Amino acid sequence: MPEQPAGRSAGYPLHTRLDAYAERYAARTRGMKASEIRALFAVASRPEVVSLAGGMPNIGGLGLEALGETIRQLVVDSGTSALQYSSGQGDPRLREHICDVMALEGATAHPDDVVVTVGSQQAVDLVTRVFCDPGDVVLCEAPSYVGALGVFSGYECEVVHVEMDEHGLIPEALSSTLTRMSAAGRRVKLLYTVPTFHNPAGVTMSAARRGEVLHICQAADVLILEDNPYGLLGFDVDPLPTLHSHEPSRVVYLGTFSKTFAPGLRVGWAVAPLAVRDKLVLAQESATLCPPTFSQQVVARYLERQDWQQQVKDFRLLYHERRDALLRALDEYLPAASWTVPDGGFYVWVTLPDHLDATAMLPRAVGERVAYVPGTAFFADGGGRNQMRLSYCHPTPERLVEGVRRLAGVVEAERELQAMFGSTSAPRRPGGYQRPHPDVG
Amino acid sequence: MPEQPAGRSAGYPLHTRLDAYAERYAARTRGMKASEIRALFAVASRPEVVSLAGGMPNIGGLGLEALGETIRQLVVDSGTSALQYSSGQGDPRLREHICDVMALEGATAHPDDVVVTVGSQQAVDLVTRVFCDPGDVVLCEAPSYVGALGVFSGYECEVVHVEMDEHGLIPEALSSTLTRMSAAGRRVKLLYTVPTFHNPAGVTMSAARRGEVLHICQAADVLILEDNPYGLLGFDVDPLPTLHSHEPSRVVYLGTFSKTFAPGLRVGWAVAPLAVRDKLVLAQESATLCPPTFSQQVVARYLERQDWQQQVKDFRLLYHERRDALLRALDEYLPAASWTVPDGGFYVWVTLPDHLDATAMLPRAVGERVAYVPGTAFFADGGGRNQMRLSYCHPTPERLVEGVRRLAGVVEAERELQAMFGSTSAPRRPGGYQRPHPDVG
Repeated sequence: MPEQPAGRSAGYPLHTRLDAYAERYAARTRGMKASEIRALFAVASRPEVVSLAGGMPNIGGLGLEALGETIRQLVVDSGTSALQYSSGQGDPRLREHICDVMALEGATAHPDDVVVTVGSQQAVDLVTRVFCDPGDVVLCEAPSYVGALGVFSGYECEVVHVEMDEHGLIPEALSSTLTRMSAAGRRVKLLYTVPTFHNPAGVTMSAARRGEVLHICQAADVLILEDNPYGLLGFDVDPLPTLHSHEPSRVVYLGTFSKTFAPGLRVGWAVAPLAVRDKLVLAQESATLCPPTFSQQVVARYLERQDWQQQVKDFRLLYHERRDALLRALDEYLPAASWTVPDGGFYVWVTLPDHLDATAMLPRAVGERVAYVPGTAFFADGGGRNQMRLSYCHPTPERLVEGVRRLAGVVEAERELQAMFGSTSAPRRPGGYQRPHPDVG
Repeated sequence: MPEQPAGRSAGYPLHTRLDAYAERYAARTRGMKASEIRALFAVASRPEVVSLAGGMPNIGGLGLEALGETIRQLVVDSGTSALQYSSGQGDPRLREHICDVMALEGATAHPDDVVVTVGSQQAVDLVTRVFCDPGDVVLCEAPSYVGALGVFSGYECEVVHVEMDEHGLIPEALSSTLTRMSAAGRRVKLLYTVPTFHNPAGVTMSAARRGEVLHICQAADVLILEDNPYGLLGFDVDPLPTLHSHEPSRVVYLGTFSKTFAPGLRVGWAVAPLAVRDKLVLAQESATLCPPTFSQQVVARYLERQDWQQQVKDFRLLYHERRDALLRALDEYLPAASWTVPDGGFYVWVTLPDHLDATAMLPRAVGERVAYVPGTAFFADGGGRNQMRLSYCHPTPERLVEGVRRLAGVVEAERELQAMFGSTSAPRRPGGYQRPHPDVG
């Protein structure tokens, strides 16, 4: 488990002298380190551990017999093209389908503006590659998606966090951060945001705030990178218009089939203004020649031949039920904590009492057969020490309840220890968006 | 068709003022431009054009019925893992198979040392990401693979070419280049080489030269990036030991299933010393979270369930027959040119008389329904103007002959024009490895 936060400003880990290649690496490798989530995968995948850590979607219900037959037909009738090199921008038919998928959230996009990527992770990589020089500032929510923080750090950007609350990014905090950056002569290249069903915070940016955030970015001439992997997985809410649909010239939009279909295909996409799209295609060609042709054609066939919208509805019900189970268990077992109440997506963000350290507590939690991601993973500046992300996407409702029960035992033991011996860490200021008590289900 | 060579030293293309985002791009975007090969794809894919341009393997013979059924079974019996996120390093079973594949060329590798990539193109990207800072020098053969040149340029490296001849990279040229770089205070980070069945030059580095090149790199403490996509596609020759098998601590080795199975899956790999492998895995996680799980499991199943070694033998025969057809046609129709004679792989490198410009001639060639890649695409320094790459991998033997016949007509017309009006370009020094007359077949 790394002890340093992910950000550049926090100091580079030293290359060990045992590494004969240490003197050869590029400067950017100092910003590449194993994330806390990745290091957890080995532990959390043991069957006796209830993993509230991973963000793996629940693809058990996909209907594998029918899917297998659909793919068999694809290979037999179109194998010579489906298994060949293809366009760096991505399959034209798939790009049309992507626009139809986006329309379900009220978004308008043209197939020409779409670039297919190896999951939306690669889209974050390519956008950063196109826009960010070392030392450029990227604004991110506090907390922010760990995979994006890793990309920004790998491109030697400085991540500056902007506070959020239960209605998402706080416009006043965005304004004051931009003013501060400008006064310091820093160049802000991107605002990276997950406005809907946030990972890890589980909150959604309100409609009013979307307008305000766009207005502020327009005035400050800052480009927005809108990452929307969970938008179709809302529970009882209508989707809010994406930032991209408000102002397409100001936003690079990212989507993915990882959560609505299957992540192992690694098919995501970016939608960008034409000039930016051209750069992204060049970056994609340089990175991979072309994104996987076969994966793209599998997705296109699936969308054409199977009732994927019903499948997404089924996913919604499944995740809704699990969210409810998790929230009920938190209410029952962890009254000392506070947490967010997601209207969709995979995650609940939990804030423990100030004096508890979720990172230090993790090995004891794993010893009690429950895993989570400590809050520090989602900050580049050392924030989030008494916070954690709990995922409800993969375990069954019963396992979720059992996981929270185990977690509560660990938290309780920790509190007793501290009551006996005193806190070992300094008291911390409260985070930006702790809710005293959640609405349950 | 871009008029400037690909290298950094040749000056950046200016961003057009029509691009509202022009002031925002990272410096590295100046090194990203549409390659001559990519721009050709649209034209050369018209059915009336004989394309000697593309490097698309001939996957028509793959046996799609059996392959479709193999993949259907994979989805039905293992879909929930084959379609899920997986390890950033790549599927463990596939990594074992990769070591078996490498053993066919006499190479020894351990599955722990393998990192799976999105085609070997992504391996070039990740290795460059890990090793190269802006301004670092990468040594490349003259000519060199266009896709690798694009990566180096995108990471703001300076490509310095090293002469080759029909026995591959010339050790004396490598030594003198290293001495020159050292005297200029330049840091050489990598020697990028395709030692076997070179793209685009069609030559193979001799066994003696492999030893010399390793010895020189050892003495100068330079790391070698050995790219070997065609090694199993030799015609009547036994594979030479890879550079990696001589000295694994000095070499990062790249392989791919794109030429022996199917490029649309985008499954390649890197083999690297342990410390470097760790960095590559971090870079892969940052770039894609994980390479496509489904593609990897498709490759693993294919290797396990189908007679893939017989398939590779079939590919060898197919490409051998096509190479012979192309060489015979060159001998018959283009006696004024010289060319290399590949013992495997996909490419013949043709040198036209000095005063001809293959880039300028290309539009006229396409008008005559034949396409090729002009030599300048394979140089970062403006070299290769009277040279071209001809691919024999995709067209039938009859189409290859027809393509060369059309090409000869274009060359002849060009020579007549120049005889009438004089050459418009300055005479050029001869390239390093023109053979006065090839051995045919």
